[in-house]
Amino acid sequence: MGKIEMGIVGLGVMGRNLALNIVDKGFSVAGYDAWPDAIQRFKASHAEVHAFSDLAAFVASLKKPRKIILLVKAGEVTEQTIARLVPFLEPSDLIVDGGNEHFRTTERRAKAIEAKGILYFGMGISGGEKGARQGPSMMPGGDEEAYRELAPVLTKIAAQTKSGPCVTYIGPGGSGHYVKMVHNGIEYANMQIIAEAYDVLKTLGGLSNEELADTFEGFEKGELGSYLIEITNKIFRKKDPEGKGDLVDQILDSAGQKGTGAWTAEDAVEIGVAIPGIGAAVSARLLSSLKDERVLAAKTLSGKKPAKVAGQDRAELVEKVRAALYASTICSYAEGFYLIKIASEKRNWGVDLSEVARIWQGGCIIRAQLLEPIRKAFDTRKDLPNLMLDSKLCAELAKNEAPWRKLVALGISHGLPLPSMGASLAYYDSYRRERLPANLTQAQRDFFGAHGYRRIDRPGELHTEWEG
Amino acid sequence: MGKIEMGIVGLGVMGRNLALNIVDKGFSVAGYDAWPDAIQRFKASHAEVHAFSDLAAFVASLKKPRKIILLVKAGEVTEQTIARLVPFLEPSDLIVDGGNEHFRTTERRAKAIEAKGILYFGMGISGGEKGARQGPSMMPGGDEEAYRELAPVLTKIAAQTKSGPCVTYIGPGGSGHYVKMVHNGIEYANMQIIAEAYDVLKTLGGLSNEELADTFEGFEKGELGSYLIEITNKIFRKKDPEGKGDLVDQILDSAGQKGTGAWTAEDAVEIGVAIPGIGAAVSARLLSSLKDERVLAAKTLSGKKPAKVAGQDRAELVEKVRAALYASTICSYAEGFYLIKIASEKRNWGVDLSEVARIWQGGCIIRAQLLEPIRKAFDTRKDLPNLMLDSKLCAELAKNEAPWRKLVALGISHGLPLPSMGASLAYYDSYRRERLPANLTQAQRDFFGAHGYRRIDRPGELHTEWEG
Repeated sequence: MGKIEMGIVGLGVMGRNLALNIVDKGFSVAGYDAWPDAIQRFKASHAEVHAFSDLAAFVASLKKPRKIILLVKAGEVTEQTIARLVPFLEPSDLIVDGGNEHFRTTERRAKAIEAKGILYFGMGISGGEKGARQGPSMMPGGDEEAYRELAPVLTKIAAQTKSGPCVTYIGPGGSGHYVKMVHNGIEYANMQIIAEAYDVLKTLGGLSNEELADTFEGFEKGELGSYLIEITNKIFRKKDPEGKGDLVDQILDSAGQKGTGAWTAEDAVEIGVAIPGIGAAVSARLLSSLKDERVLAAKTLSGKKPAKVAGQDRAELVEKVRAALYASTICSYAEGFYLIKIASEKRNWGVDLSEVARIWQGGCIIRAQLLEPIRKAFDTRKDLPNLMLDSKLCAELAKNEAPWRKLVALGISHGLPLPSMGASLAYYDSYRRERLPANLTQAQRDFFGAHGYRRIDRPGELHTEWEG
Repeated sequence: MGKIEMGIVGLGVMGRNLALNIVDKGFSVAGYDAWPDAIQRFKASHAEVHAFSDLAAFVASLKKPRKIILLVKAGEVTEQTIARLVPFLEPSDLIVDGGNEHFRTTERRAKAIEAKGILYFGMGISGGEKGARQGPSMMPGGDEEAYRELAPVLTKIAAQTKSGPCVTYIGPGGSGHYVKMVHNGIEYANMQIIAEAYDVLKTLGGLSNEELADTFEGFEKGELGSYLIEITNKIFRKKDPEGKGDLVDQILDSAGQKGTGAWTAEDAVEIGVAIPGIGAAVSARLLSSLKDERVLAAKTLSGKKPAKVAGQDRAELVEKVRAALYASTICSYAEGFYLIKIASEKRNWGVDLSEVARIWQGGCIIRAQLLEPIRKAFDTRKDLPNLMLDSKLCAELAKNEAPWRKLVALGISHGLPLPSMGASLAYYDSYRRERLPANLTQAQRDFFGAHGYRRIDRPGELHTEWEG
């Protein structure tokens, strides 16, 4: 009988680094890869990992019940890998899919595999290559009992923070991959908000890349401190390896996406949750990718062109940008946590939002100072309807509201698009509005489609013959 | 052998009115409904329609190849109705689903039914009860040859405009239902933009309902003329039947939705098309429906509360609102037509956008003066990348840009959310921007995830080691 504690299938960048992380923490690891070359390279440099090119031998080397983390490409490759792996496994063995898989795919696979008595986890992992090596944030979803088998290793290899290791049992079914998907949705919004701050400071403020780096370094030290702000300041300091000044200026303004942001937007629509700031970030990437059309449109649609604002006080501008960055980022977390809350209620996942905030405080891409007040908010009130209603975050929004509002109006006045900051502000202003103009929308729907409406003074669905 | 020209299954509001419309145009019609009561009522009042409660007799009464329009509830009821109907049909008979069905469901059904030699159409119908009776706008998708069987009747019963009857062959597969879905997505945006105009005029301008009615009546006479603007002015004049002043003030500000707007947002994300103004309208309805939370949040989130602006020139405010309404509406059509264009390209539907604009000029909910310049734009240039690039519409946007911009900034400054107008302006400003800040987004993605980037000075995908 095998004695090795953990198995990893797929020794690419993520698998290799996670294997070395596990070894560092004192556990034995077996690695399998279908490519013999990958195995040879691995054997030569990392003898501490037992590398196999034979799947049967790999499985046989593992202690029962076997615990195997898959780190292969999501989709078809994962599908095929599972099909090849399952015949070697026995009831109570445990597969953990560590890829960025859609939560519905995970639920379908879990159902098929669990029919054979094999346990299945969908586990989102954030932190990239470096996170995998030094401690990622992990979001495992599956059978709660089975999580006890994984916990001793996962809690050791996770990023460690003051509030504990960055891993927790998320819930059953596809909940782990779902929470990772929303993490990425929030990441899209956070990144777009930073891009908008950059655009204002550069275009309207005329800041050089060095001044931008200094400004973002300043932001990093305060309540805005986050991994994304930290790498932003480093990006502004990076020279072009091809010698043309600063690298950021040489990069094409056409953003790619791998799909998790789009999945977030899709599921939000599916379950009826408004996430306008995240949605605007997904749209902004799509519009950026239409580079050729934009070059053409810039010539044709000759309206207001954003340019350096004369007589602008730089410190004041930076302060407005800081406030807009901060308040909009709070909104993007509010949207994301609200989405998880509703998804968890609809699907009976029982996700603990304060635990989600806690495990995002280290290891992952959206780790930020802000996650501590968010964690506390949900820890104090498990049933908090929306983050914006927490007393601390509510006060933060109030404090930053005026300069945030001024900054968005400034962008609009100068023809500089601020889609995510603007959508976040509209989210905030809509949510705190007792009476919205949707009474007119309901009247229109009843007028042309007899869809009915309710009155403000008593319950019940009504219809009016509007004409005549 | 039967002699009746057209069959209608489902004699509810839509089916009954469409049947009477067909009779008016000189064609014979047989109607079937599963509820004997509906049939009895129909027979008593409308002897000119041959009403059947027996499906076999209904089918037998029809001239071959039989042409049957289904007007039953989308989803399960349509599914079951088709299953009951098909055994009575023969090859070359033709079923037309006139409901608001999802285009993918239509494609699945068409495939199953066409395997039996029976032809299948998914046909979006817009115009509600009144449209069905007096002439709707119809969007049929299916086999092009088979459309010739339907055309004689459809072109007669459709709404008639200067540019022809409001029906055309849309394309194969689910394209008819798809175009109707996007029609509804545009409708969501148009309605939200009108709601925002109402909010500004009422809240910041202090206009009474009578003044609002007069203002919208004024809008209706100009380039903004549309069915939705027309019913808006009528709504403001409607008294509460329960005696509490104007009805619009008694209606709860919590908007419902039946799903087609959400489907539009979902498919846009799926195929990678940015429709931020439509997306913001879907979000706005969702936020409006959180009435209880908003009442709570209005007390807690005590920031800027929108109120009447002192010293505001009313005529100037109305002019800004008109410009914002008009320009934002152009953007919502630009988004919707762009979505149809890309969907048609990806799915090989060959949809003629100028024909779509033409058949929306009458009968349907989004009929508007604006559809004439839109029709001309696509008629002149079939390959127009985006409506905003058409010389006429581009000039209209330029003319209205300054007051539109001022209006959105005004709302933001006063804490009044303008999600769809704001998103539309950001869409316009992003699309006409040669350089967006997405270079930073790409740098970040490459920094934390090694996702690669392109340079501005030469082709090729690159990756940089950003640290050290």
